[in-house]
Amino acid sequence: MNEPLRIVVALGGNALSDPTKPGSVAEQFARTRETSVPLCDLLEEGHRLLITHGNGPQVGSILRRVELSQHEVHPIDLGLCVADSQAGMGYMICQCMTNELLRRRIDRYAIALVTTVQVDPNDPAFTNPTKPIGAFYSPEIAQRHMTQDGWKMIEVPGKGFRRVVPSPRPIGIKPLHAIKDLFDKGEILVACGGGGIPIVWRDGWGYEGLEAVIDKDLAAALLAVGVGADRLIIVTDQDCVYEKFGTPDQRPIPRLTVEQARRRLEAGEFPNGSMGPKVEAAVQFLTQSPRPNVKTVITSYTTLVDAIHDRAGTCFVRV
Amino acid sequence: MNEPLRIVVALGGNALSDPTKPGSVAEQFARTRETSVPLCDLLEEGHRLLITHGNGPQVGSILRRVELSQHEVHPIDLGLCVADSQAGMGYMICQCMTNELLRRRIDRYAIALVTTVQVDPNDPAFTNPTKPIGAFYSPEIAQRHMTQDGWKMIEVPGKGFRRVVPSPRPIGIKPLHAIKDLFDKGEILVACGGGGIPIVWRDGWGYEGLEAVIDKDLAAALLAVGVGADRLIIVTDQDCVYEKFGTPDQRPIPRLTVEQARRRLEAGEFPNGSMGPKVEAAVQFLTQSPRPNVKTVITSYTTLVDAIHDRAGTCFVRV
Repeated sequence: MNEPLRIVVALGGNALSDPTKPGSVAEQFARTRETSVPLCDLLEEGHRLLITHGNGPQVGSILRRVELSQHEVHPIDLGLCVADSQAGMGYMICQCMTNELLRRRIDRYAIALVTTVQVDPNDPAFTNPTKPIGAFYSPEIAQRHMTQDGWKMIEVPGKGFRRVVPSPRPIGIKPLHAIKDLFDKGEILVACGGGGIPIVWRDGWGYEGLEAVIDKDLAAALLAVGVGADRLIIVTDQDCVYEKFGTPDQRPIPRLTVEQARRRLEAGEFPNGSMGPKVEAAVQFLTQSPRPNVKTVITSYTTLVDAIHDRAGTCFVRV
Repeated sequence: MNEPLRIVVALGGNALSDPTKPGSVAEQFARTRETSVPLCDLLEEGHRLLITHGNGPQVGSILRRVELSQHEVHPIDLGLCVADSQAGMGYMICQCMTNELLRRRIDRYAIALVTTVQVDPNDPAFTNPTKPIGAFYSPEIAQRHMTQDGWKMIEVPGKGFRRVVPSPRPIGIKPLHAIKDLFDKGEILVACGGGGIPIVWRDGWGYEGLEAVIDKDLAAALLAVGVGADRLIIVTDQDCVYEKFGTPDQRPIPRLTVEQARRRLEAGEFPNGSMGPKVEAAVQFLTQSPRPNVKTVITSYTTLVDAIHDRAGTCFVRV
């Protein structure tokens, strides 16, 4: 008999579309149906599930559509692109989950909530944008975007120029109270997609959106703290975290304490922009949650169920 | 002292963007801020508010972006376009409402839910698409869409050809139980945007999206029945329903019983595609709700508060 756990699952891009395929809607649905199987296994074991997800390819497609049509259709800003992706992807995940449950004769309907995530307008990320988004451009077109649109761009060797935007730290989730209420009632939820729609508080005005994207794993950690989760599962394209990843000496790491993880982070063992932020999010959940016996797990969607039983993945613990 | 009412408000396009302007994001936010003022007045009077909204211009923009970029970016279907519009617009409405409340020193955060609406796959609308959506096309391009994409199109005199899609009747809302739970708790909600993401049930498969749009006022009536509303307010560009509208003899209609409304509908007094479906939705709420003393009101956003006190708008009652 398993102890029922309150689980927050952060799905990475390749749990929602096969990175080797062009990413059509049909392909996204097909991969999401696959991912729904282990997620529903967790529900059948009695656990509660709050799902969050990345949106890199999807928000990239939306941005590119906006750009290619702006001679005729008014543009929308990055925050609204993230918003749009939340409902499109939330709908897809909810439908795949609901259908998989119905196949198991369980009549429950997953719920997606539009979620904003507050950031600090003085976050250093705003003066140093680092998160690459959207398409790759030739030097000429990149130059035009930099001059005309004020984009900051970086060169990715062999691929071209890419826009970088600020990725400030998440400091609050709205509407957290409604997410928590529904989670407490046992609802299956999708929230905080794409790291959340970034907003700031402006004195004398109120909440306002802005051009930024929030790391979805850091947002997931904040969400997991906020709803009082027992587990944060970060689903990525590797079955676990590896030592010396990508070298002939790579070795799986089954378990890390907060202290061990921090030492490896400081030593630069995990690359920025891939495993680094995930390990950081793993640690953040453990250090910020007031609950006892919390764990973070980093694993792939195919090893999700084994990972919750400590038979796969990398498990992060406080001590 | 007013009796607190459970109100479902269906916002028409011009409550969310000024139809005389090009419809940029800044303009949409500006009009939505205006509309938030009377909505927050209703909240301050102690009423509960569940907001739904049309998405015609917004889904038109999304469709056009998809079309203009499909040589490079995979297209998304109409249901996903509706989904995308729900989060973008839900975010906008929630933020404007929240900021207006904070200006009144009320600290509440409105919540937007991604909502699907079930339709009958055998609905006659599927063999007779009538709802115009998106851009106007020249005869040549219209012909190409009809041949290559299987679009059905109609000619709008003086404007060009326009795509028409099925507009089946809404028969179920998911997740209604979560919408009702949150409404019962007193949350300020946005749901069922754009009439909802249309889905059908397919035996042996599950729920599935399809190419259709649902009339937002009929969906609002179904929602109002489902959550046990006392009032359905349909917000349009007229302060009330008029007899002989648009003629020198036009006269406001302050009150209609279900019987009177049906007689006028049958006599063809209200045009299809504008006031007709709104009057039909008004009647549907009154005939399907099991609750006593329910009313529908058709009015504009500037006369919303007067209308709830029977000083403006057209009020529909059972007898």
